[in-house]
Amino acid sequence: MSAGISPARYRERLQEAQAAVEQAGIAAMLLGVGPELEWLVGYTAVGHERLNLLIIGPGGVPTFLGPRLELAAAQHAPGLGGGTVRLETWEEQEDPYQRVPALLVPAAVRPSESRRRILVSDGLRAAFVLGLQDVLPEASWGVASTALAPLRRVKDAEEIALLRAAAEAADRVVEAVARGPLIGRSEAEVAAEVRWRLVDEGHDGAEFAIVASGPNSASPHHEPGVRLIQAGEPLLLDIGGRRAGYCSDTTRTFWLAGHDGSAPDARFVEIHLLTERAQAAARGAVRPGVTFGSIDAAARDIIVAGGYGEQFFHRLGHGIGLEVHEEPYVIGGSNEPVVDGNTFSLEPGIYLEGRYGVRIEDAVACVADGGEAFNRTPRELRVISGRP
Amino acid sequence: MSAGISPARYRERLQEAQAAVEQAGIAAMLLGVGPELEWLVGYTAVGHERLNLLIIGPGGVPTFLGPRLELAAAQHAPGLGGGTVRLETWEEQEDPYQRVPALLVPAAVRPSESRRRILVSDGLRAAFVLGLQDVLPEASWGVASTALAPLRRVKDAEEIALLRAAAEAADRVVEAVARGPLIGRSEAEVAAEVRWRLVDEGHDGAEFAIVASGPNSASPHHEPGVRLIQAGEPLLLDIGGRRAGYCSDTTRTFWLAGHDGSAPDARFVEIHLLTERAQAAARGAVRPGVTFGSIDAAARDIIVAGGYGEQFFHRLGHGIGLEVHEEPYVIGGSNEPVVDGNTFSLEPGIYLEGRYGVRIEDAVACVADGGEAFNRTPRELRVISGRP
Repeated sequence: MSAGISPARYRERLQEAQAAVEQAGIAAMLLGVGPELEWLVGYTAVGHERLNLLIIGPGGVPTFLGPRLELAAAQHAPGLGGGTVRLETWEEQEDPYQRVPALLVPAAVRPSESRRRILVSDGLRAAFVLGLQDVLPEASWGVASTALAPLRRVKDAEEIALLRAAAEAADRVVEAVARGPLIGRSEAEVAAEVRWRLVDEGHDGAEFAIVASGPNSASPHHEPGVRLIQAGEPLLLDIGGRRAGYCSDTTRTFWLAGHDGSAPDARFVEIHLLTERAQAAARGAVRPGVTFGSIDAAARDIIVAGGYGEQFFHRLGHGIGLEVHEEPYVIGGSNEPVVDGNTFSLEPGIYLEGRYGVRIEDAVACVADGGEAFNRTPRELRVISGRP
Repeated sequence: MSAGISPARYRERLQEAQAAVEQAGIAAMLLGVGPELEWLVGYTAVGHERLNLLIIGPGGVPTFLGPRLELAAAQHAPGLGGGTVRLETWEEQEDPYQRVPALLVPAAVRPSESRRRILVSDGLRAAFVLGLQDVLPEASWGVASTALAPLRRVKDAEEIALLRAAAEAADRVVEAVARGPLIGRSEAEVAAEVRWRLVDEGHDGAEFAIVASGPNSASPHHEPGVRLIQAGEPLLLDIGGRRAGYCSDTTRTFWLAGHDGSAPDARFVEIHLLTERAQAAARGAVRPGVTFGSIDAAARDIIVAGGYGEQFFHRLGHGIGLEVHEEPYVIGGSNEPVVDGNTFSLEPGIYLEGRYGVRIEDAVACVADGGEAFNRTPRELRVISGRP
């Protein structure tokens, strides 16, 4: 459940989703446990192997079908109590799929193509998808993000506040870890420190605790390992998780000088400065009406002009909200317009394989007059001792 | 990655999986990020929206298709380096599904029914399932657990050791939380304590931190909330998470006496004793050759005879390993035989709605001569003060 979202807001979201089903002329959306269910009704079920399904048709009262042993928990969710959703339960030894066809509103059986279309939540488990396909052999299938992402990607004030608070908590963790000691410890050990500090700051856990030292910083999604962090090399921290439902995600790349003051070499200074300029340009490009592609270009053009286009081989960023990666994506060629209330990461990077890499990442919001960065720790190259 | 699993063991698992594909006469298994991939090659990718797919055909070298920016991380996985798997990457703006058909071995195109069959990992995201169905319209689809679960459910010595260590860590958390203080704190606050203690004990986080006080203990999957824990009522703790890849999951139900010594009432003593007897009977029933249904019955018969059959409305347990809930399930009517190396929870409960509930849960292994409980905290009714 996301503390801070009002029951009234959950009701509005459900109405918006139902309107989207109506407008699309489809039979239903079937949403399992995941961010869609959390966004619509504030429910996060425990466990994953039992079918939980919110069924939203073009009319009537939406139905939530869940296992009986989770009924009390479901009733407790802010958007499932109070009669806006009909609750149906299945028993432990029953086949829940058999219950689904009867729960679709009759309009769904109309034999037109769009009326046979059913959208499922993007993350619905394959076992559930195949189970549903078995009992609804005439349906055609798509993902619910096509209808829900346009709603979910515009954050309201409550969500913005939760994202800001999560980012501020993650910033405090970055600063605490940067105070060291770091040199002589393994990446995995520092990642464990990131985890407990995030939890200490109110996070549920760390979805990301990338601690990449020296050459490992050239691998964007490095998994922290046994390598010992050394003086005279960079340390990349890419950390984040969920706090009160909403996600943090920030990256900073430090230079570790040690006591003898091993200075960064010229190449590292060059790519850090370039990444920093690219990231600042992207932040400066954010305002309502521009495209996500143009924001990607604002950062990428600088890195390409600096001669490192090939070494920046990922998109600039991703939406952030209930999911750490969600729509909209900040990717080259995207013609999607940015609107007030979009929240996303901006994270250019330059990776020199076998040597080192740099990435600088903030979560930002598009507001009426530009961009607001949720992360506020310094972005310039910081040379830290890494010693106690 | 699961520390403690040798590279040789990963190679064996991959060979066993390929043999299963051959034996089933199917086209391929397509496995996304999740426990199957972790079990087979020790790889846990960061993020969830980019397609990562291990493709295992009936012959040839298995292929792993993943995004380029995660290539270095993938190569680092113990089962993906060293040439046992061919690595293919897709670029950020490419459609990765188009690459899949050519990566299936030619035998897959044979027009017999079984040769058209493709198994996908049970938890594969719907977006990926539908994307694959689009490019492989002739295939028939099933879940990979039908082929992999028989392999994964038999744990080897390394896995047993990891599960035991995770359970011991969770036991220490249960004991630390039980030492209090508890009375006057909210469930959510105690759940946060459970989380940081689990992390402190080497867990990545808490998948379960059910803290259910008083009447909330009657809801098996209660979500901890603002309710303040009181004297003169039970407190149910159901906690667990992942530690070095493998899961813990244990439940104990305490009575909180406070300083004035509010004693448990007779009904609570009755249902706790009954649950305890049922749980002991289930542990006693574990040995190679019996069925999972008979273990469920061993516990359930006692609760039914005690007059609370209706108030024990869930299965007795679930397999535990890389997933906190996985096959085999300990459920009534199951004819699946128990074998040496199976690991699963035994967790009978009695729930009196509006009043309170009891559950006692251990993770156990079936070993050659019976059952070994990984959890060792006292199972009898413990009346604790809940005060500092």
